[in-house]
Amino acid sequence: MSSSIPHQRPDAPSFPCVDANESRAAKLATQANKLTFIKQNNQNQVKIEDVEGEGPEPVYATPTPATYQSFTSHYPLLLDYGGVLPNFDIAYETWGSLNQDKSNAILLHTGLSASSHAKSHPGNDTPGWWERFIGPGSDYAIDTEKFFVICTNVLGGCYGSTGPSSPHPEDSKPYGTRFPIITQFDMVRAQWRLIDSLGIHKLYASAGCSMGGMQSIAAAHLEPERVRSIISISGTARSGSTAVAMRFAQRSCLMSDPNWNRGFYYDGMPPHTGMKMARQIATITYRSGPEWEQRFSRKRRVTPLSDDEMATNVNNPGDAPKLCPDFLIETYLDHQGEQFCLKYDANSLIYVSKAMDLFDMTKPALMDIDQHRKRNENKVNKELLGSKTSHSMEPPSLDSVQVNNRKPYISTAPAVPYAQELTEGLTRLSKIPVLIIGVHSDILFPFDQQRELADSLRKGGDPERVKFFALDGPWGHDTFLIDTSNVGGAIRGFLI
Amino acid sequence: MSSSIPHQRPDAPSFPCVDANESRAAKLATQANKLTFIKQNNQNQVKIEDVEGEGPEPVYATPTPATYQSFTSHYPLLLDYGGVLPNFDIAYETWGSLNQDKSNAILLHTGLSASSHAKSHPGNDTPGWWERFIGPGSDYAIDTEKFFVICTNVLGGCYGSTGPSSPHPEDSKPYGTRFPIITQFDMVRAQWRLIDSLGIHKLYASAGCSMGGMQSIAAAHLEPERVRSIISISGTARSGSTAVAMRFAQRSCLMSDPNWNRGFYYDGMPPHTGMKMARQIATITYRSGPEWEQRFSRKRRVTPLSDDEMATNVNNPGDAPKLCPDFLIETYLDHQGEQFCLKYDANSLIYVSKAMDLFDMTKPALMDIDQHRKRNENKVNKELLGSKTSHSMEPPSLDSVQVNNRKPYISTAPAVPYAQELTEGLTRLSKIPVLIIGVHSDILFPFDQQRELADSLRKGGDPERVKFFALDGPWGHDTFLIDTSNVGGAIRGFLI
Repeated sequence: MSSSIPHQRPDAPSFPCVDANESRAAKLATQANKLTFIKQNNQNQVKIEDVEGEGPEPVYATPTPATYQSFTSHYPLLLDYGGVLPNFDIAYETWGSLNQDKSNAILLHTGLSASSHAKSHPGNDTPGWWERFIGPGSDYAIDTEKFFVICTNVLGGCYGSTGPSSPHPEDSKPYGTRFPIITQFDMVRAQWRLIDSLGIHKLYASAGCSMGGMQSIAAAHLEPERVRSIISISGTARSGSTAVAMRFAQRSCLMSDPNWNRGFYYDGMPPHTGMKMARQIATITYRSGPEWEQRFSRKRRVTPLSDDEMATNVNNPGDAPKLCPDFLIETYLDHQGEQFCLKYDANSLIYVSKAMDLFDMTKPALMDIDQHRKRNENKVNKELLGSKTSHSMEPPSLDSVQVNNRKPYISTAPAVPYAQELTEGLTRLSKIPVLIIGVHSDILFPFDQQRELADSLRKGGDPERVKFFALDGPWGHDTFLIDTSNVGGAIRGFLI
Repeated sequence: MSSSIPHQRPDAPSFPCVDANESRAAKLATQANKLTFIKQNNQNQVKIEDVEGEGPEPVYATPTPATYQSFTSHYPLLLDYGGVLPNFDIAYETWGSLNQDKSNAILLHTGLSASSHAKSHPGNDTPGWWERFIGPGSDYAIDTEKFFVICTNVLGGCYGSTGPSSPHPEDSKPYGTRFPIITQFDMVRAQWRLIDSLGIHKLYASAGCSMGGMQSIAAAHLEPERVRSIISISGTARSGSTAVAMRFAQRSCLMSDPNWNRGFYYDGMPPHTGMKMARQIATITYRSGPEWEQRFSRKRRVTPLSDDEMATNVNNPGDAPKLCPDFLIETYLDHQGEQFCLKYDANSLIYVSKAMDLFDMTKPALMDIDQHRKRNENKVNKELLGSKTSHSMEPPSLDSVQVNNRKPYISTAPAVPYAQELTEGLTRLSKIPVLIIGVHSDILFPFDQQRELADSLRKGGDPERVKFFALDGPWGHDTFLIDTSNVGGAIRGFLI
């Protein structure tokens, strides 16, 4: 224990976990440019001891050095709830080659906190978040000898795409919470601009896991003629109240950290403590369940016995319990929180997780969004007229054309049954083959939601076009990052 | 919005939820004696708007005015991990009358944060946490015309029993984190002292829900000859890693709140923000699941339309989303957090929840505790000899005699199979009738754990003595507070 810790009382126990928090704060306080914390590849990461207990540990977020490509749209983007981004960047990486008729592109949608770095490549050999799923040859879920894979950092993120940490066009200071509310559809609209710029008319597949499982559907909803097939893994057609609750608990921890400062922390101390708490909660929702019982069970951290103790007392009891991390599951969560708390932008977490909560493919929800858009349509033209930005030569995106032309849903007065609302919301996908994968041990996107999605899609078109795989992996929601054999196999078979 | 809020930027959205946190802090800062916050019956509670969405809302914690009775033990209590309390108080309340041969007493063990106030009575007409389960006549689960019901505030709690907020005998200042680590067995030892003082030799039943479901077993393990029957509702024989993770996330929020101050906040600002975060997480573990989907679904808070809006625009879209509580499930969690954050002592939450994590009835775990006790046995005598406290005339408790006489388990060298370890740990209960109730929708004490407890008990004695009820209520863990019909019915039938 450092003697500089102010509140340490001689008659009270020590709290190494609280000391660690204070050390992190002290270290950050001496750092000149705090905004760099998410730009640097973990250089600021506090070193902590390794987690005990073996198990598969996927790469969650990989803050990549700037080896991604960047697409800038100079046309304004009208967002679902009325915000407008006059221009925006999308960071992306690609693997494989686009074929001559540009018909082999797979757009890969990510989970909440992932970067565009799904797979290592010559420019960046860090393993990506789906490293073992993408590669050359038929051993991989997505064969890069056949397909051209595109992965983006989502709009709202912090790994190269425009988000709350990006400069506001008016004052070049970070947006902070001046950033507008975004939806899954908005994120996908931004991706469609990128696809347009690559000259790709139709995607071979719109594929994604977790939040990406929502986006794989949203992309096809916005542009049904431009998606040949959909892969939605551990996703949902609408977030349930328990998932909203779990993400709310995370946002609350962030927003009640005084360092969050209502979203304007970029020239001060970042809300590292709130981020750590949020990540601990998130980790529970990502894993938990059977694997933890097998891996951690009730094992506690033990101080190795000294030679003397070994020699004299074979029945030495285990260590007395401590209030700081003690059970291995606690050290694991603590480690996950420490790892993440300076790796990702707090505002990005707030905006992107909120966009997950808002996702709802039922017809009434889609109608509500359409009404919001209709109300704000004029903003885009105004913005264009009043804009001082010189525009690139890129054509108006197909999407911004569609804003005005989209046929609104016809209102149905009486309430329709629940599943029926979803089938009605998914009508634009009625002719697209879909692969859905669900995992029984998932507590964040419960299995019933993938089944509901499959059933609703089947009711709205040829049932044979919908393939539904139910997996029994013990890893919970994160199975999509780990189970190359089953998840990968299902994808490979579907893409043939 | 108040103009006194320092960080409000004119070009950024308002955050009423952050304002509320800051208002609470400002209010507490002006309050002279902050320790009173848990003694006063919610007088300091911040008023917030009512939660929308109907549903059964049990009384979780009832900080009662001092209408409970108090038992003081002047004999030292040796704790499992070596701590010693030279003396301690146990707050308790009773209902019904003790019969002549003192054979009709039911000791009711509570959940984590409950007080002794299980039921209203002439001294305190506030509804108790099990109000509808206890009362005169055969309509109630526990008939007070037949039984004498005793409910205590647990050791480590803050509603009248000795805990971290109680004065340390050396300096009369609150223990804070100088309070020793306690276990479920320690809490039960303290209860047995009370039972001794009431002259009760044998309990008609040791009954409890949630944490109390652990204690109902622990009480019989310590004193198998003194328990006629056991009722364990939504409990477990050992906490699983997911439950530990969920409680760890709560403790982390508390311990990383700077106001926690390593446990010494009693003359300063309490960690009200950490408490609110912790309670939000706890509420997810208490409820969630099917009832939330039915009750809150994806409903959002709506601003009522003005008359003008009503008249002019029937298709007015819903409100734009907000980052502060927005979905009804969010307002619900926010409300639960606000309600609780000044109602319960943060250190009590840390110590009592840790004691839940430590509960493990497998033989190796019990052996480990026995070794710890053996190591520390001499502390009690030392304490007695060195004590300046004048002792009351109460006899040495049966328990403190047993400390020295208990036959230690014989170590078995090779690892025994999992369930077998539990059966071996539960041998002292081999002749006691047991009622176990489990709820399928419980995510905190998963149903499989109640089944495991039932199976392990059945293997260790006459299987017929173990009754196991599986319930399908949609309320998750909290079903035991709500479902008078099924939970109550099963208890009533078992007690006949």
